[in-house]
Amino acid sequence: MVQPWQDTELPDERRAADLLARMTDEEKAAQLVSVWLGADDDDDGADVAPLQHALGEPVGLEELLPYGLGHLTRPFGTAPVAPVEGAAELAALQRRIRAGNRFGIPAIAHEECLTGFTTWQATAFPTPLAWGASFDPGLVGEAAAAIGATMASVGVHQGLSPVLDVVRDPRWGRTEEAIGEDPYLVATIGTAYVRGLESAGIVATLKHFAAYSASRAGRNHAPAPLGPRELADVILPPFEMALRDGGARSVMPAYNDIDGLPAHADPELLTRLLREAWGFTGTVVSDYFAVTFLRSAHRVAATDAEAAELALAAGVDVELPAGRCFPAASPPRELLDRAALRVLTQKCALGMLDPGWEPAVPETADLNPPRLRDLAARLAEESVVLVANDGGALPLPAEARIAVLGPLADEPAAMLGCYSFPRHVGVEHPELPMGIKVPTLAEALRAELPGAGFVDDPARADVCVVAVGDRSGLFGRGTSGEGCDAPDLLLPFGQGEVVEAALDSGTPVVLVLLSGRPYALGAWADRAAAIVQAFFPGQEGGPAVAGVLAGRVEPSGRLPVSVPREPGGQPWNYLAPPLGWHNDASSLDPRPLFPFGHGLAYTEFAWDAPSAAAAETTVDGEVSLDVTVRNTGARPGTEVVQVYLHDPVGRVALPEARLVGYLRVPLDPGASADVRVTFPADLAAYTGPDGRRIVEPGELELRLSSSSLETRHRVRVTLTGEERVVGHDRRLRCGMTFRPRRP
Amino acid sequence: MVQPWQDTELPDERRAADLLARMTDEEKAAQLVSVWLGADDDDDGADVAPLQHALGEPVGLEELLPYGLGHLTRPFGTAPVAPVEGAAELAALQRRIRAGNRFGIPAIAHEECLTGFTTWQATAFPTPLAWGASFDPGLVGEAAAAIGATMASVGVHQGLSPVLDVVRDPRWGRTEEAIGEDPYLVATIGTAYVRGLESAGIVATLKHFAAYSASRAGRNHAPAPLGPRELADVILPPFEMALRDGGARSVMPAYNDIDGLPAHADPELLTRLLREAWGFTGTVVSDYFAVTFLRSAHRVAATDAEAAELALAAGVDVELPAGRCFPAASPPRELLDRAALRVLTQKCALGMLDPGWEPAVPETADLNPPRLRDLAARLAEESVVLVANDGGALPLPAEARIAVLGPLADEPAAMLGCYSFPRHVGVEHPELPMGIKVPTLAEALRAELPGAGFVDDPARADVCVVAVGDRSGLFGRGTSGEGCDAPDLLLPFGQGEVVEAALDSGTPVVLVLLSGRPYALGAWADRAAAIVQAFFPGQEGGPAVAGVLAGRVEPSGRLPVSVPREPGGQPWNYLAPPLGWHNDASSLDPRPLFPFGHGLAYTEFAWDAPSAAAAETTVDGEVSLDVTVRNTGARPGTEVVQVYLHDPVGRVALPEARLVGYLRVPLDPGASADVRVTFPADLAAYTGPDGRRIVEPGELELRLSSSSLETRHRVRVTLTGEERVVGHDRRLRCGMTFRPRRP
Repeated sequence: MVQPWQDTELPDERRAADLLARMTDEEKAAQLVSVWLGADDDDDGADVAPLQHALGEPVGLEELLPYGLGHLTRPFGTAPVAPVEGAAELAALQRRIRAGNRFGIPAIAHEECLTGFTTWQATAFPTPLAWGASFDPGLVGEAAAAIGATMASVGVHQGLSPVLDVVRDPRWGRTEEAIGEDPYLVATIGTAYVRGLESAGIVATLKHFAAYSASRAGRNHAPAPLGPRELADVILPPFEMALRDGGARSVMPAYNDIDGLPAHADPELLTRLLREAWGFTGTVVSDYFAVTFLRSAHRVAATDAEAAELALAAGVDVELPAGRCFPAASPPRELLDRAALRVLTQKCALGMLDPGWEPAVPETADLNPPRLRDLAARLAEESVVLVANDGGALPLPAEARIAVLGPLADEPAAMLGCYSFPRHVGVEHPELPMGIKVPTLAEALRAELPGAGFVDDPARADVCVVAVGDRSGLFGRGTSGEGCDAPDLLLPFGQGEVVEAALDSGTPVVLVLLSGRPYALGAWADRAAAIVQAFFPGQEGGPAVAGVLAGRVEPSGRLPVSVPREPGGQPWNYLAPPLGWHNDASSLDPRPLFPFGHGLAYTEFAWDAPSAAAAETTVDGEVSLDVTVRNTGARPGTEVVQVYLHDPVGRVALPEARLVGYLRVPLDPGASADVRVTFPADLAAYTGPDGRRIVEPGELELRLSSSSLETRHRVRVTLTGEERVVGHDRRLRCGMTFRPRRP
Repeated sequence: MVQPWQDTELPDERRAADLLARMTDEEKAAQLVSVWLGADDDDDGADVAPLQHALGEPVGLEELLPYGLGHLTRPFGTAPVAPVEGAAELAALQRRIRAGNRFGIPAIAHEECLTGFTTWQATAFPTPLAWGASFDPGLVGEAAAAIGATMASVGVHQGLSPVLDVVRDPRWGRTEEAIGEDPYLVATIGTAYVRGLESAGIVATLKHFAAYSASRAGRNHAPAPLGPRELADVILPPFEMALRDGGARSVMPAYNDIDGLPAHADPELLTRLLREAWGFTGTVVSDYFAVTFLRSAHRVAATDAEAAELALAAGVDVELPAGRCFPAASPPRELLDRAALRVLTQKCALGMLDPGWEPAVPETADLNPPRLRDLAARLAEESVVLVANDGGALPLPAEARIAVLGPLADEPAAMLGCYSFPRHVGVEHPELPMGIKVPTLAEALRAELPGAGFVDDPARADVCVVAVGDRSGLFGRGTSGEGCDAPDLLLPFGQGEVVEAALDSGTPVVLVLLSGRPYALGAWADRAAAIVQAFFPGQEGGPAVAGVLAGRVEPSGRLPVSVPREPGGQPWNYLAPPLGWHNDASSLDPRPLFPFGHGLAYTEFAWDAPSAAAAETTVDGEVSLDVTVRNTGARPGTEVVQVYLHDPVGRVALPEARLVGYLRVPLDPGASADVRVTFPADLAAYTGPDGRRIVEPGELELRLSSSSLETRHRVRVTLTGEERVVGHDRRLRCGMTFRPRRP
């Protein structure tokens, strides 16, 4: 007889509740933990989870099997395994898990997928900071859908991505994992990623909730000093959009505390806001070891059991990567039930409790197929930012004599972010082939410019390409990546000397940054013939950057983070209100060398005057305006039309300007397009002194811009009516479309 | 007939209310503004108020005279004036003001007095960071009383000191004006200063209320990103103590916003907290130009009139330095009355409305008498910190051959903070004699060591004294001081090269820092034979530092701020919870080279075991314990007994340790003293998740320490009972006394 929990006609939560009612407390508790097989195989401690070694032993698989198991941690990303073998092992494990418990419930297998599926032989995509640079949510969504499909094909259910942390201090090592310093850019790109991943049936996990990026001095895990308005207006909006518009089904709290309160112990964040205000019904999974950290690091709990109870009470449902604290606790039954119901509901939604469910057992599995490689290449190409080309050195002449210098010129690692398998796990297995082909910049340039001469001596070169930047790694093993924080934004490892030497040679220098964060370029910008910035562009990054240098690829990326002039004086970002910019009372001038949104093309664009210089609507209305953009140069190119909101008077100090809309507009030489901007007044909302989000009547200025500091046209928008309080149902997006104009 | 407002038998507020009832709105409004005569005399803009030039013209004296005048701005500190002449001019002006209005009301004359009275020929005291280093509230109070007496003698009523900002980012230029990075140290030293100043009849002004020191990246006036718990537990306590225990009668709001809300427009801060919760009845005077800044910089007001109304509604009573916005406004009468009543009440309290009141007209006025010079010398001596003496190079042998090097070796300015008259105003008048004698370090050393040989060449020297650090100045004209913020903590102006050269010479190097902030010393600490840190020690600072070097003065200062190892990675301070210290998840190690509270002597101290290893009391009780400290060396010396609280488990992430008590204990060689510590459980209070300040039952650890990182003994304290919510009436101090022990 089919029980209600097996009845696929019933709603998921109804099925889960039925199953829950049949379970013992031990069985419920088993759904709230994970098992990480192979995590402790490494004797030298140099594994992917070095933080675990000072913590207690987790509860093991054998002990859990009779009761079931909630999650399986990183079956593909812990140690190298070929895709088909990995899938077969995972399937066998799932069969064991199902056979072990009374109800035959399998475990949710979760994996990392920040720069593509973090497993051997899988396509290594550009890092999220490069997604931000692309200003192309559509392409990011396509990539995520394709990544998700490969994960699903081998039995993975949940991906621990995307990172929606808004960059607040680029010294933070995880800056490369974030999309940018503007919440609207992070929200729209991140939401596109979520939609893509979820469209493949993979549970997307929004992290890190919240303010992880705002840690003091960018030190990983350090406290985040911020108040409720910064939280509401800068940190939270990407999460809100990714839940509402993206349909993400999981959320991971942040390691840090906010003003003393650790996220994993904060019911305001995880329950009142996330579930009650935003209506989230998915699962909250802890960050790795973070429940233990409530005791050992934050010291808000005296024992592991207390830590578990705090986390469960706050709203954490699943302890990752393994059960250390939850198994030690005896939480009130309503907390146990609440968390277990959520996990079981998700398993229903994933079809894992359906009669006949079987784990995936693919006979073949290509995790790096042409389709993914092509997406990785297109995303890489769109993410390369031509920062400066004063000397007109780019594109490189086809027959130039080129010296390719710098420590990253012939370094595959320069292309890959910290969450790519080769950098995340592969580095621990030097005997293992990388599993994917990652052309270096030098290799790619040679392929791109077969007619050029490549010389070792700058003195004989017409142009010198100098590749500098980062090497990603975990926990101090790189210059960028998780646990690789920087004291300032000075190019690391003395690479500035390489740049200086090249500049001193007198040969025109094309400076290529391959990095995970912006670095101070003020010392060289005036002397370089051109500057190109790429943020770990992935396995196809070498050809993408070379393509831009050679002119095969038209540069169209825009800076998702400000590039500073000087290495000190951090943190700074462009969302600062006026006194956070240059002010007469400080000797420091934090204005960026190259601002957020900046990026050049090999052609020029003209922007006609918009359809109106002023517009009026109500505080709950919208205004539409049109602006024509023309390619006035001799080459094709893509303008990124950016719309910034400047609110001249607020009830609190407001950013000088913030991004409220953007659109990539590709244009052939001589072509033009009409760009329509539909701005809802809701986007002018901000959090006022009393904590409510309001839209005020009065004057606004919309800036139609090619960067946050290069405004082409200003449109005065008058909002009429009474001050309005807006909630979670407010409009979150600016309408942006374009229509090619007939010649 | 004597009116009620003239009746000195009546309470001040009653008298003020009577006067108010007789006034027109214009007369009330005139009490809310100041006039700054001479502020715009300077044609080149390089005056003490460069911020004013972009603002509107203030309302002038002539216009105000028929209605009266609230304040007079800086009659002694705007341009050089001899004391007696200044007093005579001020008295004449007061007579004009009194004659101009119907009630004969004079104006409150306010002045700066941060490092002594900021006027020509007045004693230049050590800067507040040096007060912090002295750990000697008694001496600071004595100095303040003496400073206040000289101010009162020439007709000044109010001093715009002390600065109670807790150092949060030492890159901030005004770090020199603050007392230290610990709120208990700031509170106790600051309160002693307030008591001293008020004891002389001078109105003390607590500034800057609040969180000015927490501006992002230490940029002056930049937004302060912090939440309510950091505000309550770190930023506000010094203000609370200085009001409750110190009786300060005026408060100045901060320029910055906190999480978007500018202090000058924040009724929660200026009214709900300050007046309703804390019971403050004095005046709130704006920081200079800060009301205008609500419009021009924070942009929370569209016009000057709106800015004024916001400020008045929030609780600002007086616009300084002159009326720009208040005169433009037509505030509701209750706001006008509220502010005017406070000003008039204060004038009553100052005796300025008493029949027969006359301005001070001294026939002589010595603002730099022996008594003040002696206090300045003693405070300077107690503030010098012997940071390291590994090489045993100090004290210097009486007949050593000494090379005194470094750009500050023969520089009087190296002794003086930014608010000393010579640095604040005198620099604009190069023709003017400095007005006080400020021996340089080199001069003082020669005087101190008449038997020594002074050589120019290190090669011929036995020891090399290298003096490096800061030159204070206003708004970018120095390396430290108001508006002189630093991008990092690298010794400025390439002085590191001077240090390197000296170290490379092979001659033992005594590194002397004369600075306004801590600088990174990691590059040199291992190689220097000794390191001495002084923070702008004032006109007697040269002899004080030389006295320490020569051994005439026993070093007894302790670091009021951490000295970092590396120049980057700021901000950091010792109040960080565990994850804000070194943690496995970050490649950065922010641990200081020399911690808060550190300082050596020329002798050694032993600490016997305390009277109990554990103690118990209720959550509203106290524990007392005794510890015996002995001078085991051959020279006299002063141990600073420091008590830190370590709370092992909190409801929020708590500091690893924080100062809760301290005491200077002078001991002759072989002598010992019993130090009694009486710790009230109230000092364990902190602000919990719901914003209430609580004392929890449970275990605490009191650390009896010679620095924040050098604990001599630990005492376990158990608090019993139920969690307790504490308020403004809680105990704020640890009892600390010592009794010399009979040999």
